[in-house]
Amino acid sequence: MTTTTDVTQDFIFGTLATDELRLAALRAAGRGVYHGQRIAPADPEPGQPVTITVSTGTEVDADEVLVFYTLDGSDPGPESAQLRLQRGAVVWDTLLWGYRQEWQGVVPAQPAGTLVRYRILARERSGRQVWAEPDAETGAPAIFGYHVDQERVPAWVRDAVIYQIFVDRFHPGAGRTWNAQARSFNDIWGGTLRGVIEQLPYLEQVGVTCLWLSPIFPSPTHHGYDATDYNAIEPRLGTLDDLRELLDAAHRRGMRVLLDFVANHASDQHPLFQRARRDAAAAERDLFVFSDWPDGYRSFFGVRSMPQFNHAHPAARRYLIDAACRWLELGVDGFRLDYANGPTHEFWSAFRAATRAVAPASFTVGEVVEAADLQRSYQGRLDGTLDFLLLQHMRAFFAFETIDAGMFESFLQRHLAYFPSDFVLPSFLDNHDMNRFLWVARGDKRRLKLAALCQFTLPHPPIIYYGTEVGLSQERDLQYPDGSRRLEESRTLMLWGDQQDRELLAFYTRLIAARRRYAGLWRAPRETLLLDPQGVVVVALTQGAQRAIVALNRTPQPRQVALAEPTRLLLASEAGVRCDGDLHLPPLSGALLLAEA
Amino acid sequence: MTTTTDVTQDFIFGTLATDELRLAALRAAGRGVYHGQRIAPADPEPGQPVTITVSTGTEVDADEVLVFYTLDGSDPGPESAQLRLQRGAVVWDTLLWGYRQEWQGVVPAQPAGTLVRYRILARERSGRQVWAEPDAETGAPAIFGYHVDQERVPAWVRDAVIYQIFVDRFHPGAGRTWNAQARSFNDIWGGTLRGVIEQLPYLEQVGVTCLWLSPIFPSPTHHGYDATDYNAIEPRLGTLDDLRELLDAAHRRGMRVLLDFVANHASDQHPLFQRARRDAAAAERDLFVFSDWPDGYRSFFGVRSMPQFNHAHPAARRYLIDAACRWLELGVDGFRLDYANGPTHEFWSAFRAATRAVAPASFTVGEVVEAADLQRSYQGRLDGTLDFLLLQHMRAFFAFETIDAGMFESFLQRHLAYFPSDFVLPSFLDNHDMNRFLWVARGDKRRLKLAALCQFTLPHPPIIYYGTEVGLSQERDLQYPDGSRRLEESRTLMLWGDQQDRELLAFYTRLIAARRRYAGLWRAPRETLLLDPQGVVVVALTQGAQRAIVALNRTPQPRQVALAEPTRLLLASEAGVRCDGDLHLPPLSGALLLAEA
Repeated sequence: MTTTTDVTQDFIFGTLATDELRLAALRAAGRGVYHGQRIAPADPEPGQPVTITVSTGTEVDADEVLVFYTLDGSDPGPESAQLRLQRGAVVWDTLLWGYRQEWQGVVPAQPAGTLVRYRILARERSGRQVWAEPDAETGAPAIFGYHVDQERVPAWVRDAVIYQIFVDRFHPGAGRTWNAQARSFNDIWGGTLRGVIEQLPYLEQVGVTCLWLSPIFPSPTHHGYDATDYNAIEPRLGTLDDLRELLDAAHRRGMRVLLDFVANHASDQHPLFQRARRDAAAAERDLFVFSDWPDGYRSFFGVRSMPQFNHAHPAARRYLIDAACRWLELGVDGFRLDYANGPTHEFWSAFRAATRAVAPASFTVGEVVEAADLQRSYQGRLDGTLDFLLLQHMRAFFAFETIDAGMFESFLQRHLAYFPSDFVLPSFLDNHDMNRFLWVARGDKRRLKLAALCQFTLPHPPIIYYGTEVGLSQERDLQYPDGSRRLEESRTLMLWGDQQDRELLAFYTRLIAARRRYAGLWRAPRETLLLDPQGVVVVALTQGAQRAIVALNRTPQPRQVALAEPTRLLLASEAGVRCDGDLHLPPLSGALLLAEA
Repeated sequence: MTTTTDVTQDFIFGTLATDELRLAALRAAGRGVYHGQRIAPADPEPGQPVTITVSTGTEVDADEVLVFYTLDGSDPGPESAQLRLQRGAVVWDTLLWGYRQEWQGVVPAQPAGTLVRYRILARERSGRQVWAEPDAETGAPAIFGYHVDQERVPAWVRDAVIYQIFVDRFHPGAGRTWNAQARSFNDIWGGTLRGVIEQLPYLEQVGVTCLWLSPIFPSPTHHGYDATDYNAIEPRLGTLDDLRELLDAAHRRGMRVLLDFVANHASDQHPLFQRARRDAAAAERDLFVFSDWPDGYRSFFGVRSMPQFNHAHPAARRYLIDAACRWLELGVDGFRLDYANGPTHEFWSAFRAATRAVAPASFTVGEVVEAADLQRSYQGRLDGTLDFLLLQHMRAFFAFETIDAGMFESFLQRHLAYFPSDFVLPSFLDNHDMNRFLWVARGDKRRLKLAALCQFTLPHPPIIYYGTEVGLSQERDLQYPDGSRRLEESRTLMLWGDQQDRELLAFYTRLIAARRRYAGLWRAPRETLLLDPQGVVVVALTQGAQRAIVALNRTPQPRQVALAEPTRLLLASEAGVRCDGDLHLPPLSGALLLAEA
């Protein structure tokens, strides 16, 4: 058992990770010309006019606000069709100690398939022109946009059980072993696509229905989140034929496969970027954002080996979108989109429209580690976003115990009500960028089972980070004593054979089976039957004749819960769970029950 | 001419004076059960149902929210009539990194004259009960309330020109001189009501129509904002007969008289407080808020000589409201209400209902040095609040030059649009709690005239702080080198006879005459004809056949403005202003013009 100081509190990396960043973002939104993706309806369909809302902040003396828009995919500007917004409400902002003026106007209804792209300009009484949300470095006016369609989340996604595979760490395959030279988790350990193919029977037995592979394009790093080519396979992971074989084999077993796609940035070794840096006159220069060519360029959080694409440039967009479409044509089922709040919303509208045209049942889910209002703004652009807020609250409640059961349940209720029902928020307890759940639970797998029971009885598709189901943890905390963070500490080697915790695996297998068997029930309304802030929560979910009861005891004491109805114990997280009319829950245990008809 | 370092930037004292206080207030509102006086309509009339909105914050797992209300003036509680609120929207709060749940419910329509008083309770799923906005020290649940009536701002208020007299510093009267022993401005200098009576002809000549007297009740201090008796006159200022004479004489000249009324706190020498501290069993103890009797009690910003009343207690309310009514019966025309955000909103609803019953044309205007949303929440409870936000912006633009003309005009436009038209926001350039305008303008009276021209052509009634019209300034800054603030530095002696700046007085006299002559025009829509962010603003106001043009040049250069219409120069702030089709404005000058019909 590790001591308290060995495990750091969660720090979820992102643009709003600290109080200071949050304040600065709120203040910035209140000062200038701010759109904030406010369109109504949020996901426009053919025949629906779209109301655009803009605020002019404390530092903009706007006399008029114009929206310039195009319908043919071209860049909008003063020559485009325009819309003059009307003055709306005046809003007081205590943080800025001043007023914002709101403005609204309506873009006419458009036919299906239209990508409406627009820029927003405020003209001050002084004659000064101020564009909405200009790029912080280049000053280029933001391009907003939305795609008019009737796209819905593919049906298969709703009931998917997703398994995240960090390919280099999963299985070497083909009789090979892990790289004996590898020392740190920043090295190459030798996992391959072949290893994944070989372990499909294992994954099928566990019950997962969808694989998410970490990046498999050529890349100089072990993680692959910096590709040098978006149209090939990293040779050490395998070949294009390996991927084809993986897709075929997975599909035969009823499994889908998602690729990890990094539209935000490439490797600085990418030939396009190399040419852009080498030749001042190269057309490739415009694919990236140089503030001071050749050494000053925009990169992912300032990491110079990861230059960002210029998503406003047609050729950059085409390169990325064409690559995505080619993988879909090969049989891939969709994408987990890395750092999705890097590229613009408008880029994603175009991306989803193009990928859906190739693969109508493909899934696009974004990594957006941000405020809920930003997450929600991806409605109509992505099928959903990874649920980092739920992650934080599940870890805080089940592992860190920094919130009580009331705060957890209240968060859950509001969180589920906040998002529209046609927006998918896949849940997870950990991933490759943070300490594993079992690590922050200090190895106490009772907490992991409890958290998983909660996760798998919530509405949205659950994700299992490889190995969590068999007790995989870490060798050390990702926060080093020198203050540095080494995310790769949570990317240890998958456990196989006797290394696997069979009891935990059996629990996960039954949990997944229950989730799949009663598919749909988990999206039913939740009713709280009992709540003890110390850590006991009992909720019921009812859909037609089906009624499930989920009971969680996060306290260190045994708890007895009186049940008002006849029930059958479907799944217990600990051996000591008993149900004899009353439900007996040992410390840190939970149960899933079915009400008898 | 003083140097830059001699004049401090404005610091407007209040509960939200700093960024830290503002953030803390926003966070507090987002955590608990928060009403924030959100009722709709904001000023309920007979026959109108009233929608109450409540938020339960990130730390309250509310399962239901109840409003307990009374209609007979009694204290509301669980035995009262109750209303169960319905769940409304879920709102994301980036500052708190969590969700708030909104709730709404409707209180039935009530007949005129009903004081609806209510408390709000959230019940958590855990069974815990959480009251809305409990007192920070005592934990007592807040009482909210509103009065059902059709009260409107008295007609005379709209066109009033108000003159603030700090009585001890205005005129000693009756052939007496200033107190020769007085040294600092914390001493008694000897101004009297007699002095005010004697100078009514002067005030009439200047043109003011309403006097606001600083506190005249018995008090141990020179300022009187800590009374020992709310039903008598401080003997050194005069007698009850003096006040009667002053009221009669003022009324004969068409002037109204407002008293400064401090409902928040008394002097610690007040007999009620003395008894409360002396005797643990005294009924008077409940009139104040003791956290630790007899030495721990609530006081005005912790100033121990100013204990706060307990406005929830019937006897404290009666004492204050009865006193106010008696002064109205004597002939007083209303009150400037000191620190009006100390007592509750519900107290003011009761206060205005009672005082209007006695004097239907009486005026109640509060000192609320706070955010605009709080100011606006006094609609229906007070006739208006002193316009501290405008004050800050006028001083920032005309004296400190910390904002440009665009920010100033944009503030003005939004500020005027933000408040309902039946809410009065009297304007002022300075008062007794801050450096005088002429002091922060470093003695440059061109800036004062320019600011006054702006002030007197805005919709709301202007206030002149005594002496501002004749060049009264200060001997030293109120911020001392040791960091302390001595507000009394702005309470120097009124200038009389040859001390007065005749040129400035003539300007003010003509300015007031113009405001009164074209009464109503200043509430007409404002149209910006010209705006140069450097500091030139030209606006037009049009009402029927009347059309005024106000031109302000705050730049250090002469400016020439082309006028598109025939105009007549009505008033110029500097001798060099000329109008020959073009308007010629010397540096730091302004003009008021009338368009020729």
